[in-house]
Amino acid sequence: MKWDWSTYGKRFEQPSGILELMNDLGEAMAAADDDLCMLGGGNPAPVAAVQERFRKEWAALAERERELDAVLGAYDTSQGSPAFLSALARFFNERYGWGITEENLCVCNGSQTAFYYLFNLLGGEGRKILLPLSPEYIGYAEQGISPDLFRAVHGRVVETGAHRFKYHIDFDALNLASDVAAMAVSRPTNPTGNVLTDEEVAGLSERAKASGVPLMIDNAYGAPFPGMLFREVTPVWEPHIILSMSLSKLGLPGTRTGIVVADAPVIRQLSAVHAVAGLASGNVGQALVRPLLESGELETLCRDHIRPFYESHSRQAADWWDAALGDAVPWTRHEAEGSMFHWLRFPGLPGGSRELYRRLKEKGVLVIPGHFFFYGLDEAAEEQHECIRVHTAMDPERVERGIGLVADTVKAMYAEG
Amino acid sequence: MKWDWSTYGKRFEQPSGILELMNDLGEAMAAADDDLCMLGGGNPAPVAAVQERFRKEWAALAERERELDAVLGAYDTSQGSPAFLSALARFFNERYGWGITEENLCVCNGSQTAFYYLFNLLGGEGRKILLPLSPEYIGYAEQGISPDLFRAVHGRVVETGAHRFKYHIDFDALNLASDVAAMAVSRPTNPTGNVLTDEEVAGLSERAKASGVPLMIDNAYGAPFPGMLFREVTPVWEPHIILSMSLSKLGLPGTRTGIVVADAPVIRQLSAVHAVAGLASGNVGQALVRPLLESGELETLCRDHIRPFYESHSRQAADWWDAALGDAVPWTRHEAEGSMFHWLRFPGLPGGSRELYRRLKEKGVLVIPGHFFFYGLDEAAEEQHECIRVHTAMDPERVERGIGLVADTVKAMYAEG
Repeated sequence: MKWDWSTYGKRFEQPSGILELMNDLGEAMAAADDDLCMLGGGNPAPVAAVQERFRKEWAALAERERELDAVLGAYDTSQGSPAFLSALARFFNERYGWGITEENLCVCNGSQTAFYYLFNLLGGEGRKILLPLSPEYIGYAEQGISPDLFRAVHGRVVETGAHRFKYHIDFDALNLASDVAAMAVSRPTNPTGNVLTDEEVAGLSERAKASGVPLMIDNAYGAPFPGMLFREVTPVWEPHIILSMSLSKLGLPGTRTGIVVADAPVIRQLSAVHAVAGLASGNVGQALVRPLLESGELETLCRDHIRPFYESHSRQAADWWDAALGDAVPWTRHEAEGSMFHWLRFPGLPGGSRELYRRLKEKGVLVIPGHFFFYGLDEAAEEQHECIRVHTAMDPERVERGIGLVADTVKAMYAEG
Repeated sequence: MKWDWSTYGKRFEQPSGILELMNDLGEAMAAADDDLCMLGGGNPAPVAAVQERFRKEWAALAERERELDAVLGAYDTSQGSPAFLSALARFFNERYGWGITEENLCVCNGSQTAFYYLFNLLGGEGRKILLPLSPEYIGYAEQGISPDLFRAVHGRVVETGAHRFKYHIDFDALNLASDVAAMAVSRPTNPTGNVLTDEEVAGLSERAKASGVPLMIDNAYGAPFPGMLFREVTPVWEPHIILSMSLSKLGLPGTRTGIVVADAPVIRQLSAVHAVAGLASGNVGQALVRPLLESGELETLCRDHIRPFYESHSRQAADWWDAALGDAVPWTRHEAEGSMFHWLRFPGLPGGSRELYRRLKEKGVLVIPGHFFFYGLDEAAEEQHECIRVHTAMDPERVERGIGLVADTVKAMYAEG
């Protein structure tokens, strides 16, 4: 049969960055190649204490038969499980004094899906989502039902040491023109591991508020959970801020649980579109995490296990980069302030990052080539074809080997010219 | 803050049928009113043998620690878990000889979401989804990203006995015009409990094939699972058919697991849009059901427990309608051939079904007023404001009481004139 797609459908006949990423991840898992260095995906690492804790909670739920029956066998509202929503509201109010209620919360099947809904509820047909710090998360790039949904502002590059840099928001270039429907940032930033400073967030928040547009903050790697932050920053929420969180990086991606904190009218819209597109969210992640939210254990798990795990892996990988690359080639790495990624730049790399990606894949090392993260820019970023994103929290032996192979390949490419 | 939505977003400021349904359901559960007769939603009934079986499987997974770690802690591909997909392919090939592979299968977060993706991949901007048998499922009505996605053909009414009727497809009125992108039917039909005959399905399939458009069959209540069919019909699949199934009515709505069987190019498109909009599906439902698929137990569970449960509840409710309504008022009921619903029509009901719904809600009985199911028609259906959908498989004492209250209310409304 010849398949004939809608205008919207035709867009998915083209390969997208996020699909390539998911396929690489899936094929790599399926191939079960023991030598593969899978440094490409965004899968959380197997943190032993976390796995053990969720196994225990799974077993505990088996004992609470009536609750388990309801978790498996009943639809909750399209906003989420009432018990989970009230536990969340209490948790945030006690810690941050946000003064929210269940009306400010919606659970979706992953925060990726929440962003898909929110971007399209707000933007489209000329109304833009402004990304104040490019490069930005690959997973947003194709989410607009309208094409060309995003307008991005390239980060200001600040050298922070030998082979080190950090992107800052270029406030001078940030224009909240009348066609801007919302601003959106990930914090920590995927792909760079950047963490916007409290001052930068305050600056964005003030401008958003003054212009009457929402500031969307994707907190999938942030505080208070999973807490993959290697410096102290403050989570913020106000009615003009749409804050999203996830249970995925906490170790539960298989439950698809995203959380949105927002003004009540936003939650009403979000849960309405969620009801239409998917009825309700999965209950399992909510049921496994609620007891840990209520007891406060979630915070200690993040503080004592998740953060130290990712921070030590990131530091270890940083040493490996320094040892492997030294001063042999021009290279620089973004300051690793949070998340599970390192962002490397190889200025003037002959052949570019796509070719680097291709050669590494042949050698059994998967990374994400950087060009996927530079969308929505008026002019191409100088470093567009010079960067890669590398997952640093996988099995250390493979991360070390992968870093060594990246270094060898990059050296060869520079040598070939 | 004043919230300003996109054109798409503005649509969700209006109340939708499906949202009203989900809210009623949610509020009813939250209120925990012991007297409430919740006959409105589509929640599967608590079938004891099924609940017990899934509890056991949940506990068994707790013992398989490495598998559980992966179920909770790893993203699968946007098509689903490879092990589940190959178990499904084997299952369908052994029973029906469809000759499918994993390339013909995609798991989504519920079949509602699969339909949302598929409708918009195929239709929109003038390309229509043709519904050959109206009334049709309330949950499709708002799923078009483009407004006016659906064109529906009213069922031909055939009287089958005293106070009984059945809708048949009006093939003479079925026009596969050039703007038709796909046909879609639910089988068993939600809301009526109709089951398209094998001949009707063959007729639709031939016409679809001849016109080069896909036939989408929503098999959420059908065979082989959950098997809520009270007469023998044959599941069909061919490359021009897009067949969706669900684990929800099997008793696992809380896991959000929908399954699509389709031609490989459709699966590629579906998994691409799924990756963009939500990365991947939840793993838990797939992990709980895979062992039952592999052992063949899934079929015996459906045959020995699910079908008899729903069929006996449906028959019981049928007797209660006859006893409660008798010949006191004009009324008729659709033949109950499958699903968990009865579809009642009260010709010329003074005040209409909305008023009936309102009065019943006041008395603690929730049903779905029928007008939500008549969308996409050129001219309003005669029975548009005369019908209600009633869930017959809940606690029998409440179903009986609910039916009694419906009968009392209807009699009063006719008497008031």
